[in-house]
Amino acid sequence: MKLVGALDIGGSKILAGLLSPAGDVLATRRALIADRRPRRVARQAADLLSDLLGARSASLRRASLQGVGCSIPGPLDRKTGRVLLSPNLEWRNVPFGRLLSEILHLPVTIDDDARCAAIGEWWRGAGRPARCLLYIVVGTGVGGGLVINGRPVYGAGDAAGEIGHTIVAPGGPRCSCGKHGCLEAVASGPAIERAARAAVARGRLMVPDAASGAKRQPISAEQVVKAARRGDPTARRILDRAGTYLGRAVANTVTLLNPDRVILGGSVARGAAWLWLPRLRQSVREFSLATAASGVRIGLGALGERAGLVGACWTFMRMEDNSASRMG
Amino acid sequence: MKLVGALDIGGSKILAGLLSPAGDVLATRRALIADRRPRRVARQAADLLSDLLGARSASLRRASLQGVGCSIPGPLDRKTGRVLLSPNLEWRNVPFGRLLSEILHLPVTIDDDARCAAIGEWWRGAGRPARCLLYIVVGTGVGGGLVINGRPVYGAGDAAGEIGHTIVAPGGPRCSCGKHGCLEAVASGPAIERAARAAVARGRLMVPDAASGAKRQPISAEQVVKAARRGDPTARRILDRAGTYLGRAVANTVTLLNPDRVILGGSVARGAAWLWLPRLRQSVREFSLATAASGVRIGLGALGERAGLVGACWTFMRMEDNSASRMG
Repeated sequence: MKLVGALDIGGSKILAGLLSPAGDVLATRRALIADRRPRRVARQAADLLSDLLGARSASLRRASLQGVGCSIPGPLDRKTGRVLLSPNLEWRNVPFGRLLSEILHLPVTIDDDARCAAIGEWWRGAGRPARCLLYIVVGTGVGGGLVINGRPVYGAGDAAGEIGHTIVAPGGPRCSCGKHGCLEAVASGPAIERAARAAVARGRLMVPDAASGAKRQPISAEQVVKAARRGDPTARRILDRAGTYLGRAVANTVTLLNPDRVILGGSVARGAAWLWLPRLRQSVREFSLATAASGVRIGLGALGERAGLVGACWTFMRMEDNSASRMG
Repeated sequence: MKLVGALDIGGSKILAGLLSPAGDVLATRRALIADRRPRRVARQAADLLSDLLGARSASLRRASLQGVGCSIPGPLDRKTGRVLLSPNLEWRNVPFGRLLSEILHLPVTIDDDARCAAIGEWWRGAGRPARCLLYIVVGTGVGGGLVINGRPVYGAGDAAGEIGHTIVAPGGPRCSCGKHGCLEAVASGPAIERAARAAVARGRLMVPDAASGAKRQPISAEQVVKAARRGDPTARRILDRAGTYLGRAVANTVTLLNPDRVILGGSVARGAAWLWLPRLRQSVREFSLATAASGVRIGLGALGERAGLVGACWTFMRMEDNSASRMG
C-alpha cells in the first residue's frame, strides 16, 4: 500500500504525518520552523517526512509515498499551489506546492489549514458522517471550514469558511484584517489575552502563573482559561464574553446553513470547551431559527491537532481527477 | 416533448406555469387563492394548470405533463411533500404534495419558495453560471436560497437559506419567528411599513398616496420607496436603515461563503434596488474579507416573479432519481 504524506504548516511549527489512503495516521513528527524562507520550510518539511519514512535522503522514493497533502494558512490558490499571503510566515505569493514537489519529486496538493481540519473531522473524526458541517478553530486566529451537501466548500475563489472575519461586534475592536468587530478580534487567543492584560492592569485579575503584579508580563489565553476554571470571576467574564460572540456567529450560521454538526477545534477552544460548549448550545437554542437548529449537534473535534493532517490526506486523495490542482 | 407544470403558491395567490424541461416558461396564469383549505388550494392550482393546457378537466393527461414542481412557503419536508408550517396560509403539517398528486394523477415535488427562486435565477436567470450563489428575497418576509459547489443547499433538514432569520440587530425589534433583531424584523416590507407609520405619526413623513394626516391609514413599503425616490429624507432614511442591515447580513455571508454572485429578488427589493444595490456593494467592500469579496457580483434577479416557477421546474426535473422525494 502506498502511503500518503501530510504536512500541517503553522506560523511557527511543522507537523508531518504518514497516513494510509483511508486517512489512518500511522506516524507523526513535529518540529519548530528553523528558517521561514519558503524553500527552507519546504526542505525542512521534506526532511521530516524522510525521517518518518526512515529514509536517508529527502528525495522520497515514489514507491513509498503517493504524494503529499499540505495544510497551510490561507489565503491560497489550490490550483497553482500558491500561498497568496501568510502573515505569520511573512510569505506573499509563494509557490509552496511547486517548491515542495520539486524537492520531493512527488505530487503535492495544498489547502487552507482550517478547511483541512474541517475535512479531517468530517472524514474520520467527530463530524462523521455529517452532510453539512461547520468547523470553527479558535487559537491564535479564528478560522472555519464548511462541508455542505457532503462536500467541502471552497467558494468561488478558495476563500470560503472565514467565519473568524464575519463581523459580530459592529464598530468593535480592530482585527488583524483591518476591519472592526470581526469574531477573531473578540474571541481569538490574542483577543482574550488583550482583555486579560487590561484586567490585570486595572488590578481586576490575578494570574498566579505569571509574575503577578508585573503588568507587562505576557499572559496566555491558557492562563486565562485556567484562572476561569479555578473560579476567578474576571477571567470567567472574559471567556464568557468571547463565548457569547462565538455563540452569535454560530447561531447565525446554523440559521443560514442548517448543519447537522458544529465542531470546535483549536488550542483555545479545547481549553475553554467546558464553558463554551454549553454556551454555544444555549446560543443556538435562543438565537437560531428553530427549524434550522433542531437537528444540530455541537461538540469538540475528535482528532485534536491531527485533524489538519487527515484533511490534507483527503485533499490529496480526492484531487487525483483534477490534475491542475496537483503540483508535480 | 412533455412539459413540466410549475406552481408558485404564495400566502394569497397562485402563479401557475407551463415550462419546457429546460426551464423555458411557455405560459403562466395567476389567481388569488379563493379558499385557503389545503384541498381547495390544490384543486384551484390544478384547475389553473388545466386552463393553461386548454383541458376541460383537472385530471391532466400524462401525455401532456410529466409532472408538477411546486414552490411553496416553508418550512417543509421535501421527501414526504409535507408543508410543516405556513403561517400565511394557516397550514400546519399539510401533505400538499400528496393532495396535488392525487388530484392530478401526476408526480409532484415541493420545495421552499425562496430556494426555488434562487435555483431559478441560478439555472436560467441572473445567476447563470455561478458556482456559489446567495439569493435574497425581500417582500412580506426576507428569505434566502443558496447554491454552493454548483448545487442547491438544503441543509440537514431542508431548512437551509434562512438569512432573514439571522440576527443583525441583537436586542432589536421582535420578529414574526419570536426572536429579536432578525434581518426580517428590520428589512422586510412590514418592517419598513412599521417605521413609516411611526414617522407619519410623528409628523416626520408625508405619504401623498395615502390619505395624509390619517395616522391609521395603511402605508405600503411601495409608497415608502416612491417617497424616498422623490427625495423625501425620512423615507430615504427608513430605506437606508433597512439597506444597512441587509448589507451587514450580505457582507458576513460573503465572508463566510465566498460566493461569485449575490442576487436580490422580491417586490420590495425590486423597488428599492436603486438605493440598495449600491449600498450592498459598499457594505461588501467595507465589511467583507477582501479575499472572499474580490470576485463577487451583486445585482437584481432577471426572472422577476417567474424565478420560483423556473426553480420548481428544476427541482422536479432533478428529483427523478430520488423517488422518495416525489409524490405520485
